Amino acid sequence: MTYFKNIDKIKYEGSGSTNPYAFKFYNPEEIVNGKTMEEYLRFGVAYWHTFTEDLSDPFGTGTALRPWDKYDGMDLAKARVEAAFEFFEKLNVPYFCFHDVDIAPEGNNLAESNKNLDTIVAMIKDYMKDSKTELLWNTVNNFTHPRFVHGAASSNNADVFAYAAAKVKKGLEVGKELGSENYVFWGGREGYESLLNTDLNLELNNLGRFYNMAVNYAEEIGFDAQFLIEPKPKEPTTHQYDFDVASGYAFLQKFDLQDHFKFNIEANHATLAGHTFEHELRYARVNNLLGSVDANQGHPLLGWDTDEFPTDLYSTTLAMYEIIKNNGLGRGGLNFDAKVRRGSFAPEDLFHAHIAGMDSFAVGLRVAQNLVDDKVFEGIVEERYNSFNDGIGKEIVDGKTDFHKLEQHALGLNEISNQSGQVERIKSIINQYLLKAYAGE
Amino acid sequence: MTYFKNIDKIKYEGSGSTNPYAFKFYNPEEIVNGKTMEEYLRFGVAYWHTFTEDLSDPFGTGTALRPWDKYDGMDLAKARVEAAFEFFEKLNVPYFCFHDVDIAPEGNNLAESNKNLDTIVAMIKDYMKDSKTELLWNTVNNFTHPRFVHGAASSNNADVFAYAAAKVKKGLEVGKELGSENYVFWGGREGYESLLNTDLNLELNNLGRFYNMAVNYAEEIGFDAQFLIEPKPKEPTTHQYDFDVASGYAFLQKFDLQDHFKFNIEANHATLAGHTFEHELRYARVNNLLGSVDANQGHPLLGWDTDEFPTDLYSTTLAMYEIIKNNGLGRGGLNFDAKVRRGSFAPEDLFHAHIAGMDSFAVGLRVAQNLVDDKVFEGIVEERYNSFNDGIGKEIVDGKTDFHKLEQHALGLNEISNQSGQVERIKSIINQYLLKAYAGE
Amino acid sequence: MTYFKNIDKIKYEGSGSTNPYAFKFYNPEEIVNGKTMEEYLRFGVAYWHTFTEDLSDPFGTGTALRPWDKYDGMDLAKARVEAAFEFFEKLNVPYFCFHDVDIAPEGNNLAESNKNLDTIVAMIKDYMKDSKTELLWNTVNNFTHPRFVHGAASSNNADVFAYAAAKVKKGLEVGKELGSENYVFWGGREGYESLLNTDLNLELNNLGRFYNMAVNYAEEIGFDAQFLIEPKPKEPTTHQYDFDVASGYAFLQKFDLQDHFKFNIEANHATLAGHTFEHELRYARVNNLLGSVDANQGHPLLGWDTDEFPTDLYSTTLAMYEIIKNNGLGRGGLNFDAKVRRGSFAPEDLFHAHIAGMDSFAVGLRVAQNLVDDKVFEGIVEERYNSFNDGIGKEIVDGKTDFHKLEQHALGLNEISNQSGQVERIKSIINQYLLKAYAGE
Amino acid sequence: MTYFKNIDKIKYEGSGSTNPYAFKFYNPEEIVNGKTMEEYLRFGVAYWHTFTEDLSDPFGTGTALRPWDKYDGMDLAKARVEAAFEFFEKLNVPYFCFHDVDIAPEGNNLAESNKNLDTIVAMIKDYMKDSKTELLWNTVNNFTHPRFVHGAASSNNADVFAYAAAKVKKGLEVGKELGSENYVFWGGREGYESLLNTDLNLELNNLGRFYNMAVNYAEEIGFDAQFLIEPKPKEPTTHQYDFDVASGYAFLQKFDLQDHFKFNIEANHATLAGHTFEHELRYARVNNLLGSVDANQGHPLLGWDTDEFPTDLYSTTLAMYEIIKNNGLGRGGLNFDAKVRRGSFAPEDLFHAHIAGMDSFAVGLRVAQNLVDDKVFEGIVEERYNSFNDGIGKEIVDGKTDFHKLEQHALGLNEISNQSGQVERIKSIINQYLLKAYAGE
Repeated sequence: MTYFKNIDKIKYEGSGSTNPYAFKFYNPEEIVNGKTMEEYLRFGVAYWHTFTEDLSDPFGTGTALRPWDKYDGMDLAKARVEAAFEFFEKLNVPYFCFHDVDIAPEGNNLAESNKNLDTIVAMIKDYMKDSKTELLWNTVNNFTHPRFVHGAASSNNADVFAYAAAKVKKGLEVGKELGSENYVFWGGREGYESLLNTDLNLELNNLGRFYNMAVNYAEEIGFDAQFLIEPKPKEPTTHQYDFDVASGYAFLQKFDLQDHFKFNIEANHATLAGHTFEHELRYARVNNLLGSVDANQGHPLLGWDTDEFPTDLYSTTLAMYEIIKNNGLGRGGLNFDAKVRRGSFAPEDLFHAHIAGMDSFAVGLRVAQNLVDDKVFEGIVEERYNSFNDGIGKEIVDGKTDFHKLEQHALGLNEISNQSGQVERIKSIINQYLLKAYAGE
Repeated sequence: MTYFKNIDKIKYEGSGSTNPYAFKFYNPEEIVNGKTMEEYLRFGVAYWHTFTEDLSDPFGTGTALRPWDKYDGMDLAKARVEAAFEFFEKLNVPYFCFHDVDIAPEGNNLAESNKNLDTIVAMIKDYMKDSKTELLWNTVNNFTHPRFVHGAASSNNADVFAYAAAKVKKGLEVGKELGSENYVFWGGREGYESLLNTDLNLELNNLGRFYNMAVNYAEEIGFDAQFLIEPKPKEPTTHQYDFDVASGYAFLQKFDLQDHFKFNIEANHATLAGHTFEHELRYARVNNLLGSVDANQGHPLLGWDTDEFPTDLYSTTLAMYEIIKNNGLGRGGLNFDAKVRRGSFAPEDLFHAHIAGMDSFAVGLRVAQNLVDDKVFEGIVEERYNSFNDGIGKEIVDGKTDFHKLEQHALGLNEISNQSGQVERIKSIINQYLLKAYAGE
Repeated sequence: MTYFKNIDKIKYEGSGSTNPYAFKFYNPEEIVNGKTMEEYLRFGVAYWHTFTEDLSDPFGTGTALRPWDKYDGMDLAKARVEAAFEFFEKLNVPYFCFHDVDIAPEGNNLAESNKNLDTIVAMIKDYMKDSKTELLWNTVNNFTHPRFVHGAASSNNADVFAYAAAKVKKGLEVGKELGSENYVFWGGREGYESLLNTDLNLELNNLGRFYNMAVNYAEEIGFDAQFLIEPKPKEPTTHQYDFDVASGYAFLQKFDLQDHFKFNIEANHATLAGHTFEHELRYARVNNLLGSVDANQGHPLLGWDTDEFPTDLYSTTLAMYEIIKNNGLGRGGLNFDAKVRRGSFAPEDLFHAHIAGMDSFAVGLRVAQNLVDDKVFEGIVEERYNSFNDGIGKEIVDGKTDFHKLEQHALGLNEISNQSGQVERIKSIINQYLLKAYAGE
Repeated sequence: MTYFKNIDKIKYEGSGSTNPYAFKFYNPEEIVNGKTMEEYLRFGVAYWHTFTEDLSDPFGTGTALRPWDKYDGMDLAKARVEAAFEFFEKLNVPYFCFHDVDIAPEGNNLAESNKNLDTIVAMIKDYMKDSKTELLWNTVNNFTHPRFVHGAASSNNADVFAYAAAKVKKGLEVGKELGSENYVFWGGREGYESLLNTDLNLELNNLGRFYNMAVNYAEEIGFDAQFLIEPKPKEPTTHQYDFDVASGYAFLQKFDLQDHFKFNIEANHATLAGHTFEHELRYARVNNLLGSVDANQGHPLLGWDTDEFPTDLYSTTLAMYEIIKNNGLGRGGLNFDAKVRRGSFAPEDLFHAHIAGMDSFAVGLRVAQNLVDDKVFEGIVEERYNSFNDGIGKEIVDGKTDFHKLEQHALGLNEISNQSGQVERIKSIINQYLLKAYAGE
């Protein structure tokens, strides 16, 4: 059956098009920096927000109108698979992502849940044969069920730790079965509601043990996906252990996991942690930890995870700049961990929203590539830091100096001359690049 | 003498220009909606940030390099006037704004301060004769001096109330002398550090009395400027009484001042209060309270007033949309209450920053006018709210119904059908308008 | 049947008691300032958080273990009534509060919903005959159902406006039937998700019309409850119209409603709006708008409504100070709009949490009364503002001066002398009052 | 001469005392857990806030009335030393802390600055001979002077790096000369205003090199102080590299510095980073990184560093709990990095504020010790985590299990039973401990 009626395969029709179901800026076949846009941007659809989400919020029940919601249980799960692959094809998107419970309902016990999962995974594998859409990453949901109320790998209850481990074990097997490029850990309950009843040290140590066991098991079964930690500072808990990339990096080093993990960076999680999206990308990049991206955006005045579709072109431009400088995302991609607003409840909004997001990243790619081609930031940095290219500066970066020599140098300085950082002018240059990106089209 | 060397009068050279001292988007003579851009945008330079500011911050002394800083006392004040009018002419800007202490130093007592002021005001008046630049608004600084430590019109000290009144009296006279279009009240100390030692009721009542006396005095001397309150929620105090436009509106109504005041809305103050800039503009507009604008922007992740030059084109577009729907700002304008970053300390940065801001609002004007011309938002609203055009909806807006009739109507409804709000699609339309605004140039 | 086993009626056992189901500080019969604590504090239980809430959060399903959850539909609604009155009696609490949908499930249409409501209201009325617990306030839930996705009284859909009106009409009738002291309006959907598709002016005007119709209908049926607006700045929407008390006061004045409404002030809503709880109480008090209180607390580092049970004794002390200075809350009370944490899912936690909250406000009452008895704040204020008792200060407050006289006064001042505000010392005095409140017991 | 007149040495007079210049709770000689309070709490006075600070804010000039401000230049520096040691003695405080520029003015070049410093350091050393007050830590100010506008060790200018190194070299020598217990690094400019012109990788690497050189030089001169990093997320810059303890821990591990540094944790910096004070203390403690504390507090509704004196007894209690569990702070202490409010400008306020802070930590110590003595938190944790004491739980913590065994365990589980976390009850227990701490006195 057809779930999304009156919508054909989305194609690039250019910025002059008035077809609401067409890409205006994203042209999958356009070549940028030696790759097609499709290869560069590696967009993914989030199964949960697109096929499972009902658009409820803490003060309102679901509003989403979804043609498959007439089904129930495993029938609903199967209908979602059908709808998903129809959606992937119509949206013309190369990847998707899911948690275990997005695709198959939990059973009465672990064995039943795994059986449900096997059924749907087989169905998905079958659909994937005839589809170009592949699995960017999978994960397991160790946060929604009441058993995880006090944590999963950081629970105070050893049974829960075991249950969480069993679910990740299955998740790794599913990832291998479907050829997943990455495997993600988001610790939505790995943190605390209150420090007052929490053994933080034991919980962190258990988390370290858990990740090491996961690494071992993936190696055992030959699942070579890139492991990714997705930081988020808080929500649902008061404080989550993977607060941001830096705290995750401290953790990885302490538990000797830094060779096995990179980060899946979400824009909205970055801002909730007090960082810009581009900061988290940059920090991960320079530490060789940039794995993948959850492409969305938050609302700067709201203190919770709004998971909006990304439309801010400043943000997509600066994100794509980091990704270009990272030589792309490798096995990672741009997964739309984004949901339509509760008021955008029509099935068509799923297309509008993804088109908005894909177009926005396509613009970001073009503007960022223009900036890179013209060495805009590189030129600024080269000039600003040129004192480190010779003399005392070179000795500093070469590790050939010490406090004695530096003091001697400083004693000989009359007046130190700094140059203006010109941030205002740089921002105006970015505006010019943005506005001229599509001039002449 | 010349303070800004090697910089000629700033002209519009178009988006292709590489001249860093040229407008790329702001063309003062371009006609938009029947007015020139210069008439529409009514840009103002803030004397304090441009000529007085030293770019210190709470953890660092001033960095600003200003050619006039070799002078001192009244000589410095005079040099600033010279520099200011040179700057106004080179920037080609129609308005400026100041506080009393920006232009003339305080003396040892009120009489001396007034004398200093008279000297500089006469000098400014003289310069204005040969300049196209006029006074958008003036005000007095009733917050920097230690005497205002516990407030000005809301001080616990009656002497301070009197002193504040005397300063405003002088400010009104100065405004009249220089033909100011508006007079602004920013209550930087009208609030409290702590509620624990504060008589909030007395302070608010005194503030009401103070504003009424100001209205009376302006009428007495025939100073017909528009009075403006500039809301800010906090900083320097913990809580300021003019928190946002709504709290100011409550105050104006309570003290029967709503016919005498409008609001001067600052972008960064709006966001510190938890509102978007466009929210404050809209709320003021629909209540006929939109007077003038302090054009700047904050940093969404910082909790203090950063007063950055406005470069976010989303924000300038939505602001200009409100201003267009307000039929312009009347006697108000767009004052750059913005300072260059501490690292942008060169005199040239003052030009770069103002050009960035003026260009950004010019883009905002063009994009907003295109949106208005195409009735983009109007069409959306017309369709969304069309149920109020007839039937029960029309009875509601005409005030011809009551709970009985409404209940009867509701009892007859089977299912209520809402339409999607399509926010994602609308955001993508805005991006298209932004990107195509300069296509073909 | 008995829902809360092994728990007897909660009594005051004093601070030395180790009985976890005893009041340590709240003694309903203790006389404070001429009233019993029970009369003064007028505690209310929130039906929704206590009997309907399942403790789900945006990333997790419900965890609450509730003995009545074995029932369904109207049977569940009836079981909740039984559990509620058992709880009220055991907790020994004088009031409760509810929304329509908390007590009875919605039917397939308005008529059926009203029928369900009638059944349960009759049952509650019956239970109230044998109970000391009365109805502090009721309201209707015009925010959870999908029909309210775009607002209720501020919806873009006239049918929804009518439906919302019909529900409030019924709510007023129910309030009258059960002798409710107050009727509350919380506009959880009266605001906007995005300004981009919103006719803010029409929505605000419709809201004004709606409130006026509600006033008229209450008068018509002789329901003399105090009307209360409960401000909240945001969540679930991006921006709600009743942002804070000040914005509500502006609204009431504009629509000539200020004689008919007071405010129901929630601590957590205050902090989300950028105000302290005590600020909102004070501002309402001095404008004669303090009606009732939703007693809870937020988490200062979280940006959403956590609705925690109030345990911060600084906050309860300062709140009770305002309430004492208001001569109590009149028909209002202290409703625990608070929910146990998701990890506190046992039925017993409902008692622990309410005991924690009631004890905290009892401590607050005692400490605040001690502060008032000793005129701590009054003495500070009397001294700080004594310049307004005579001379120019008295002329100011008596409205007998103007800018001329004030300038004359200011010109005659040599140096203005302010006194230290001593906030640090005042805070240390509060600590001393807190720590000595139970010394000697 | 005497700077603080009419104030005698501050003594413990007990909670009944009405002497405003007496400790009510802090009794330096009282024995707690085998040490005197003075030994346990190791209070320090911050030279900058107490003797140098003028109480200006971004919108107001200084208000502080300080008897030594009649002096100038080196005379002022010397007067401050006299005032400081008078203050230390009267306050009866065991430690103080300073930055180089707090104690001596900068000269026209580095050599002159060092000479000024030598003069004052010699004077301080002399005063220390007759004083019980010792140096808790010193540091150098590499953030206030314009030369540090773009950073110090992370500047884009190699000359500035050298200058910063020379200043730290001198700082280490001064620390050795005065027997400092610790040496602190606060990177107020080690971060960025904007990522757009920043080479984050080079800056972080340079910072790593800088810290290593500092370690080497301290070893060379035999200065055995504990090195401390003081994290702060932002302000003055937009983003600082030592964002919080976790980001600092990642940095230390990357640059192999973790054996040489601990952290100096400031309450207000913790909250600006989105953490509670106790979270940062706990995280540092379990990683053996808790070195010292900057004892102050922020305002939960303000987004900048307010540096208030600590008076919140919840916060001091939870902080002291962490410190007790850390077996004290070792060579660290509780430095009041706190300033009186701008309105608390009298010299006496310096005493009121320090008394408030010292009393608050004394209460915190007593309450926390009572909680520890009664094993309140330990009992909760022991019970909550007891599933890790045997069976599968013990295998997990002993590292003797893997995903296979854990899955087997999970498959055998019927229903997982969690226990309530009882946060509300725990909070009410803390209130009881707080209120009974001084009962019976």
